[in-house]
Amino acid sequence: MYEGSDFSCDVAIPHPERLDVVHLDELVLAFQHTRPYWQTHVVIVPRRHLASLTSLTRDDERDVRALFAVVQQVARRVEQETGAAAVLTDLGRYQDSKHLHVHVHSGAQLRRD
Amino acid sequence: MYEGSDFSCDVAIPHPERLDVVHLDELVLAFQHTRPYWQTHVVIVPRRHLASLTSLTRDDERDVRALFAVVQQVARRVEQETGAAAVLTDLGRYQDSKHLHVHVHSGAQLRRD
Repeated sequence: MYEGSDFSCDVAIPHPERLDVVHLDELVLAFQHTRPYWQTHVVIVPRRHLASLTSLTRDDERDVRALFAVVQQVARRVEQETGAAAVLTDLGRYQDSKHLHVHVHSGAQLRRD
Repeated sequence: MYEGSDFSCDVAIPHPERLDVVHLDELVLAFQHTRPYWQTHVVIVPRRHLASLTSLTRDDERDVRALFAVVQQVARRVEQETGAAAVLTDLGRYQDSKHLHVHVHSGAQLRRD
């Protein structure tokens, strides 16, 4: 099991073949969570290292726009398929992997940590 | 207690004096949740009626940019003050008030519904 602090840069972005990829383009990767917390649990990350929502600056606008568009796409599909979705990003002590990532989830919670 | 489907348009935006306002400008209102789900619980809404994250289009860009900037400000403050924050918006069955709203929360969960 991965024990580092940046799953995106260490595993997901260099090795998308290890993932169930939902979306991949030049700027953004979306994949099914490898150890889902909810029945439906997709994670969306910028491929460039950005630390968190609160670290973003104007220089990151291209990545943020691309990320936002994929978050909307994934959220629309989950909302249509399951009737509901939550779109979430964590900060500080709540943020496990120190690379900006957005969770789109729906359905029963499977685990908490 | 409010029982309608759009707290923002019916109460928060026309009557900010009833709220503990965190931020108010031409486009965006942020306030302490009136019945908080978490120890720290701020809600950020566009003052123009926008239904949800997945309903946004390019025409809403000005509101979305302004909303995003205030979400970042609030999240930075909560992260600095409490060491953690979650930034969340709900869709479909999970979305109670049918006006786009972003929760920034931290601390113990006080209630679930």
